[in-house]
Amino acid sequence: MAKLDPATVQLESLIHAVQSNMSFIEVTSAFKWADIGWHVPPGVRADFEIKYVARGQIALQQAGLSIAGSPGDLFFLDNQKGHSCEHGTFTLFSFGFNVAQNAPEGKRLYEQIQAIFAKLPQKLKLDIHGRMIRRYTELNKEISVRSFGYEVNLKCLMVQLLIEVMRICLVIRSSASNITPYQYNKYTDLISDIIVYLQENAGEHIDLHELGGKYMLNPRYLNRIFKGATGFPIFRYHQMIKVEKAKKLLSTSGLNLLEIAMELGFESSQSFSKFYKKMTLITPSEYRKMLKESE
Amino acid sequence: MAKLDPATVQLESLIHAVQSNMSFIEVTSAFKWADIGWHVPPGVRADFEIKYVARGQIALQQAGLSIAGSPGDLFFLDNQKGHSCEHGTFTLFSFGFNVAQNAPEGKRLYEQIQAIFAKLPQKLKLDIHGRMIRRYTELNKEISVRSFGYEVNLKCLMVQLLIEVMRICLVIRSSASNITPYQYNKYTDLISDIIVYLQENAGEHIDLHELGGKYMLNPRYLNRIFKGATGFPIFRYHQMIKVEKAKKLLSTSGLNLLEIAMELGFESSQSFSKFYKKMTLITPSEYRKMLKESE
Repeated sequence: MAKLDPATVQLESLIHAVQSNMSFIEVTSAFKWADIGWHVPPGVRADFEIKYVARGQIALQQAGLSIAGSPGDLFFLDNQKGHSCEHGTFTLFSFGFNVAQNAPEGKRLYEQIQAIFAKLPQKLKLDIHGRMIRRYTELNKEISVRSFGYEVNLKCLMVQLLIEVMRICLVIRSSASNITPYQYNKYTDLISDIIVYLQENAGEHIDLHELGGKYMLNPRYLNRIFKGATGFPIFRYHQMIKVEKAKKLLSTSGLNLLEIAMELGFESSQSFSKFYKKMTLITPSEYRKMLKESE
Repeated sequence: MAKLDPATVQLESLIHAVQSNMSFIEVTSAFKWADIGWHVPPGVRADFEIKYVARGQIALQQAGLSIAGSPGDLFFLDNQKGHSCEHGTFTLFSFGFNVAQNAPEGKRLYEQIQAIFAKLPQKLKLDIHGRMIRRYTELNKEISVRSFGYEVNLKCLMVQLLIEVMRICLVIRSSASNITPYQYNKYTDLISDIIVYLQENAGEHIDLHELGGKYMLNPRYLNRIFKGATGFPIFRYHQMIKVEKAKKLLSTSGLNLLEIAMELGFESSQSFSKFYKKMTLITPSEYRKMLKESE
């Protein structure tokens, strides 16, 4: 794994802290806000807030500092310090969360998150507009409707939003990534679609030109993006899926080698065995024997 | 709150157990499976599996019992007992998760989930097809692509799937609910859309006929569904949103009463104050004074 950007590292710590101690976290607000400024005194309202500027310009003040925000900016605010914003022409999304500090673990978690917020940049420039707005809107809906289980669902949505931010950061802030934000935004869903397609067609021949046609992309370009995102070209990835499916069928299905070979699109059990050995260094029969012995 | 169906109660316990101890949970598999039977010996593979029948018929065996499954059925499987299924004509979705038992809390969690699974019906009949398939497909994509943070994301997706199942159960298994599964399926997204619309138009007059036209539904029918889902008719809900927004503006914005009244669609600060007092029993000025004093 390539060296990560400091913001990505902090985001990962934040996600880890939240998911390990989810029962101490409570998402207390999620809303869309336009034009009217505000003044949150220190220590009031939610412990932490994360705001996304969707439109216009804001001038945010925290701890004597003024930070300008424009569309695509994400703000991490520790409300211990308070913060304020002038009236203006803007739309932003916000959610806030509290950390229950009644137990020592909760107090520790609060301090941990506070330390992470202190190390995170106050403003993170993200170029992925539609996705962020979708995530915030989900939070907004969930807190508005308050259906059964919404408290837990809100925490999950918060973690998922942070993971999305982390993934975006990984792309736009890491020099090791060979995907541009534009490609990330445009192709993330495409890549996962293709992978599911490859899985559901583990036994079929995959034609790169056909696949390119399906998504209206140059096949070689599609392959390059796919490799950029997954680390493997499409054909190789399809082979890995075949091996995984073979293992599953060998271990649990009771089908014989020929039946498994047919299921995976091979013409004979011999060609299947040859392929399997090339990929895993043992034959399918050896694998099955190993499983039987270990039971 | 009305008395809950026993399955809903168990699902709630499961969700609670998982979210309180998320770091001990690992989603180990998520896949779509067709036609080929399987045999999972006791204690092998994932600790627990939850399977959804999407097409066809299955005959599932567990602990000497055979249970027939058809589209819409959700199976809860404790793999300590093992389970198997015959070849057939079917498609199902499955995900499996493990509980790390190296620490005492993990061991306790495992036993807790095992007890919940023992009390859950092995098969739960759900009528909400599209939503379940969408949830399972999300899990499937996430585990296939394995992007940064996927382990945590998978747990969140699992919890969200369980919450959706719980909400469906609440509708279809609770006699207290006045929403049919058909309405749940059809209108859940609609209701949250309307709520967000009401929030974004807190200062506008809401015309029920216009709203009905927007969603191509009889306005009275729309209002009835909305009340069934939220407990309040649309007009009343809009008033409650106005109060919430008023409180927010009074507490943080620095706007004066007339400005807030205008923002919320009142013609004067007097009519705003009258409305606010009717809803909260104190006037906006009194509320602001209270806040000042408590700082």
